[in-house]
Amino acid sequence: MVFVGFGFLMVFLQRYGFSSVGFTFLLAAFALQWSTLVQGFLHSFHSGHIHVGVESMINADFCAGAVLISFGAVLGKTGPAQLLLMALLEVVLFGINEFVLLHLLGVRDAGGSMTIHTFGAYFGLVLSRVLYRPQLEKSKHRQGSVYHSDLFAMIGTIFLWIFWPSFNSALTALGAGQHRTALNTYYSLAASTLGTFALSALVGEDGRLDMVHIQNAALAGGVVVGTSSEMMLTPFGALAAGFLAGTVSTLGYKFFTPILESKFKVQDTCGVHNLHGMPGVLGALLGVLVAGLATHEAYGDGLESVFPLIAEGQRSATSQAMLQLFGLFVTLMFASVGGGLGGLLLKLPFLDSPPDSQCYEDQVHWQVPGEHEDEAQGPLRVEEADTQA
Amino acid sequence: MVFVGFGFLMVFLQRYGFSSVGFTFLLAAFALQWSTLVQGFLHSFHSGHIHVGVESMINADFCAGAVLISFGAVLGKTGPAQLLLMALLEVVLFGINEFVLLHLLGVRDAGGSMTIHTFGAYFGLVLSRVLYRPQLEKSKHRQGSVYHSDLFAMIGTIFLWIFWPSFNSALTALGAGQHRTALNTYYSLAASTLGTFALSALVGEDGRLDMVHIQNAALAGGVVVGTSSEMMLTPFGALAAGFLAGTVSTLGYKFFTPILESKFKVQDTCGVHNLHGMPGVLGALLGVLVAGLATHEAYGDGLESVFPLIAEGQRSATSQAMLQLFGLFVTLMFASVGGGLGGLLLKLPFLDSPPDSQCYEDQVHWQVPGEHEDEAQGPLRVEEADTQA
Amino acid sequence: MVFVGFGFLMVFLQRYGFSSVGFTFLLAAFALQWSTLVQGFLHSFHSGHIHVGVESMINADFCAGAVLISFGAVLGKTGPAQLLLMALLEVVLFGINEFVLLHLLGVRDAGGSMTIHTFGAYFGLVLSRVLYRPQLEKSKHRQGSVYHSDLFAMIGTIFLWIFWPSFNSALTALGAGQHRTALNTYYSLAASTLGTFALSALVGEDGRLDMVHIQNAALAGGVVVGTSSEMMLTPFGALAAGFLAGTVSTLGYKFFTPILESKFKVQDTCGVHNLHGMPGVLGALLGVLVAGLATHEAYGDGLESVFPLIAEGQRSATSQAMLQLFGLFVTLMFASVGGGLGGLLLKLPFLDSPPDSQCYEDQVHWQVPGEHEDEAQGPLRVEEADTQA
Repeated sequence: MVFVGFGFLMVFLQRYGFSSVGFTFLLAAFALQWSTLVQGFLHSFHSGHIHVGVESMINADFCAGAVLISFGAVLGKTGPAQLLLMALLEVVLFGINEFVLLHLLGVRDAGGSMTIHTFGAYFGLVLSRVLYRPQLEKSKHRQGSVYHSDLFAMIGTIFLWIFWPSFNSALTALGAGQHRTALNTYYSLAASTLGTFALSALVGEDGRLDMVHIQNAALAGGVVVGTSSEMMLTPFGALAAGFLAGTVSTLGYKFFTPILESKFKVQDTCGVHNLHGMPGVLGALLGVLVAGLATHEAYGDGLESVFPLIAEGQRSATSQAMLQLFGLFVTLMFASVGGGLGGLLLKLPFLDSPPDSQCYEDQVHWQVPGEHEDEAQGPLRVEEADTQA
Repeated sequence: MVFVGFGFLMVFLQRYGFSSVGFTFLLAAFALQWSTLVQGFLHSFHSGHIHVGVESMINADFCAGAVLISFGAVLGKTGPAQLLLMALLEVVLFGINEFVLLHLLGVRDAGGSMTIHTFGAYFGLVLSRVLYRPQLEKSKHRQGSVYHSDLFAMIGTIFLWIFWPSFNSALTALGAGQHRTALNTYYSLAASTLGTFALSALVGEDGRLDMVHIQNAALAGGVVVGTSSEMMLTPFGALAAGFLAGTVSTLGYKFFTPILESKFKVQDTCGVHNLHGMPGVLGALLGVLVAGLATHEAYGDGLESVFPLIAEGQRSATSQAMLQLFGLFVTLMFASVGGGLGGLLLKLPFLDSPPDSQCYEDQVHWQVPGEHEDEAQGPLRVEEADTQA
Repeated sequence: MVFVGFGFLMVFLQRYGFSSVGFTFLLAAFALQWSTLVQGFLHSFHSGHIHVGVESMINADFCAGAVLISFGAVLGKTGPAQLLLMALLEVVLFGINEFVLLHLLGVRDAGGSMTIHTFGAYFGLVLSRVLYRPQLEKSKHRQGSVYHSDLFAMIGTIFLWIFWPSFNSALTALGAGQHRTALNTYYSLAASTLGTFALSALVGEDGRLDMVHIQNAALAGGVVVGTSSEMMLTPFGALAAGFLAGTVSTLGYKFFTPILESKFKVQDTCGVHNLHGMPGVLGALLGVLVAGLATHEAYGDGLESVFPLIAEGQRSATSQAMLQLFGLFVTLMFASVGGGLGGLLLKLPFLDSPPDSQCYEDQVHWQVPGEHEDEAQGPLRVEEADTQA
């Protein structure tokens, strides 16, 4: 899921499709292996062996998701060596952050609003801040989509949409809990899709829709219920949360991303702040709220699997809510410090960062064929591109 | 499944890809929520609460499928407000029709030859008849495919093909019944694919194949066994039915669609009459036949799950067959009256229907980027298009 | 899986997308039905009836996989009638070869390194050798990719990647054996992806990556563990095997494919020798090695399901290894003789092979629309193409 969805979601750039899909593939394959090792040491290291299984595969997949979210923030402005170094660092920090939250603090975060989305987004955004390129204007003409690349990106959107209910419920307890998680996610996604369409038409010129909003904000509903979908959110709660997330995310694309670049000097290629950052934080706060309202009456026997510490009487619902909130701060701290550190590392000169005038350009990294039959000479086109640039 | 498949299947129009995928997404998200409510009231309304679960999700998915089939008939000629109104009405009628067939008449229709395909197709076709545009010629130059849009559409075809066996068997009884349904569907699809290739080459100029036939008619095999796939159709029966459906559907695209437009004034953009209408009716009739032949000997204990009323001795196989036939008429009536009513509603002037010269055109509804790098200015292109039109 | 993956993997040719996807579809639909019959006669023919079920569907799917691998070798140089004849012959030989290996020799080959990949690849390569076209230069200008066709092909790659663990484990024993198979495949794929990226950058001009390598060699890891993934390969073994396969496959594309054409007169359109041939043989040899090391200690009770004959004491691990090796030779022999025979059959003049100057060209077999809006007249373009050719 991670591959198809994220890879094609990023493919919208007109001259960066090979890199979007290819580096997604590379990063995911690397992160899967590396995080199996890292998480193995943290979670399932027994007498010198790491125990692997379906659960460790899913965990590694989640970690790869966070890495790819960060990739979205720096897309087009980093080379493969930089990206692998970023993944090397991020996987370790992801593992530690997740260990602190889930095992030390006893925070619940089944779909990863905090551990995956918030962490991945702010790690990438801070990193992008450190790597700020004032001369990025030179590549601005390539930072848009073309008709077909937008359609490719919709493949990613629709896949993520379809698989998100399974994604959020992959690690929840079997039975009623898993059903609840999938249904909540599904209602939230449906509502965020409607919210996105409505808002996009509302803020667009002449009421026309913007494909960027649809591609991204429609998914915010899946992010926002990442923490709370296994809890007693109720269908109405899921619909409301999803609608809110779709709205906020769309407004973010329209108004906040330009400010983020001009004022805060964060160049966020894919708008991960709108799709993962804000909805992730919202999702964490929603988790605080829903956890604080947990009672034995509402959950029945299911309380044992969702909040085992409350069920055993070791913790009250209020203190669980406080710890959920604390978990969000821990995540933001890990992400910011890690992203800052990562940014400094990625500035190392031998890592071969693309020049300002060659950002969002496949030909720096790939042997690219032409776009039409009569130009299909591949390598020859590089010189032309250099001359034009 | 509904999203990927139907969305990309309709993407074949050269300048309508954003709308095809985007409105499919919008309609599906809306229909899923609305039909959960509507079907909840009809099927599982207990003491003020609607019970939701995996089954209600699948039911809602089926309903969204019918809405998207109707969308196929009016594709390119309706705006988003019109489509949402259409879905609002169609979901209610779908729910009532399904309730009458399955609960009042005791008709069997696991894969929805009647409730989904026949209903969706004739609803859309009658609606398209009411919205007939005599001046559609003005947009005729946009009503074709280009090379890449046809490949995109094949993504939809192949997905639908792969998931159709699961689709038809989603709501059947677990175990032998579900296996039988999946296998029958699979054989029927394989046979309709071969039939389509053969016929397409036969009726094409110089024996050359037509991509439109392959994209659509190859799927007719899944439609035609929608009713009977859970019954004792036998592999040979499934192969024969699939081959027949592929053949009829291909001939429909070649010869019947032009007549439908010129004689009956029905402009059927996606040819839903060929893919869903005729194979759906054929499938319903096949269901009549197979139900009439049901015996205790052939089904053994499985009769209880396929035809509970026959198993309990409340109904003979012949009367079951008669009721299946009656169900088809009920469906056609609901679809026609509903489609006519819907067409009148959609003519309301404030619904912002695209003008005749701007059909099959994304720029009416979307901010569209250029197709090549040097034209990627997006909004600017609108004026050009207006001038050309 | 077979449809999406293989179909889109072959879509990279700039003017052959319709045929790649369409003929894949046709061949798969035909092979599925025909191999259900053939394998039914060989495996489950009881008192005049063939027993069908999920297992026979998966078996037929595997057989279709082998046919599509062979199709990759002759892609662009054969018409549909030739391809159907090829499938007619290959399905029979596939069934016999599989019967000899699995039932007579007791060879283990869950993911089909031998029965699917080695057989399919060498069948296709020998067939391509017999059909050698010295004048293929005339179509050389069409034998490349364009930007969008490469992205389409990546859809195929990523799908195959994702589903390969399920593919290899589809027919293994439930429980621990199936988990082990999926995990081994997954580690091997991740390692081959990294190996491919590393090698592709190493052998590319200026360290730039080649999309052809990524599309194909990244999958070699799935092929190489086809035989051994259900065995006790250990994660480290899987990683090593995958890395080796990715490396060998990439080097094959870069250096061996040109030699294959110039020296051995084998025109291998998709490079199936690199993706299926060499990794398949490597996988078979790896299976020999791992089978030879099988002990009761390592497998415990699982030995019964992986190597029943060893568990029952009828065979030693060494003799199992020898028989695995013998199975590889049997497969190579069947593939070579079958491919040679097939090549002679396909030379029959009435089969309508495309002329040397019209290879890799959709318009021979399809009514093709233009690539841009202003050329979308379809049939008219044929004359132009003929004139140019």
